[in-house]
Amino acid sequence: MDDDAKKTALRMIPYGIYVMTAKGGDGSVAAATVNWVTQTSFKPPLVAIGVKVDSGALNAVNETRGFAINMLGKGQQGQAFAFFKPAEVDGNTVSGEAFAPGAETGSPILECAQASVECKVTEIVEQGDHHIVIGEVVSANVAKEPEGRADAAILEMKELGDNVFYGG
Amino acid sequence: MDDDAKKTALRMIPYGIYVMTAKGGDGSVAAATVNWVTQTSFKPPLVAIGVKVDSGALNAVNETRGFAINMLGKGQQGQAFAFFKPAEVDGNTVSGEAFAPGAETGSPILECAQASVECKVTEIVEQGDHHIVIGEVVSANVAKEPEGRADAAILEMKELGDNVFYGG
Repeated sequence: MDDDAKKTALRMIPYGIYVMTAKGGDGSVAAATVNWVTQTSFKPPLVAIGVKVDSGALNAVNETRGFAINMLGKGQQGQAFAFFKPAEVDGNTVSGEAFAPGAETGSPILECAQASVECKVTEIVEQGDHHIVIGEVVSANVAKEPEGRADAAILEMKELGDNVFYGG
Repeated sequence: MDDDAKKTALRMIPYGIYVMTAKGGDGSVAAATVNWVTQTSFKPPLVAIGVKVDSGALNAVNETRGFAINMLGKGQQGQAFAFFKPAEVDGNTVSGEAFAPGAETGSPILECAQASVECKVTEIVEQGDHHIVIGEVVSANVAKEPEGRADAAILEMKELGDNVFYGG
């Protein structure tokens, strides 16, 4: 395989930027910026996310089988970079962002997120250096109704910088 | 669950536009426009795609366990809409687009595609109204090297029209 072609072809896939959050089995909070996200079904509404092996987020999801996807909006690059680092909880903030536990899964819902969905895990496919977490959307919240198309309102990978291609 | 919030939140996920192709067990050709695509691992390089149940594409992938993802570029709305319809093969064209069989899987590689990857199926998760096809990238080709970021070169869902949200 031509490795340069593989890299270029796969980098053509466009991504939004999300903070994936989950409650750990001990009540701890995990939060990480992710971008490998897609819907995969309407009925039931399913999403699939590539989550790094040995990450705090994957560990928490494995423990409690629930998570939230917090959609970041235009201009929220600061939040995206904040959650590239290990999450630090202080009272009702995580890495400096206020959150409240989601009603369905207890996963942190970030106050700064434009929208969020809570999901219950239906399967985790343990393949590759990231595992594929599949979840059914059980709750959704829109904090700020997008003007125009919803997919024009999200922070995009390409807006993180000319050389940023991966959030994990 | 608030159905409007669910719809808006999930519609915030941005998508590129791809023609998924596969050879059927009888040597037939399947081709369909899809958008629910994400990478899920670097090593090995894995992708996950939501593919409609009972579609020709999913049937062919189930039979031969291989497929290709053909990346459409800016301005290729015509090709995107062409492959919303059932694929029609005529010689070395499918739905009017010239193709050649990929070396690794025999899946049709479209001449018009900006780039393509061939994949071997590692798992199909049979959940929902679309199943989740997981494939390892075994071959890649870039027909037209993107200027600037690769993810700025792909045709995006939002470029298909103000009210087009799903290619499936």
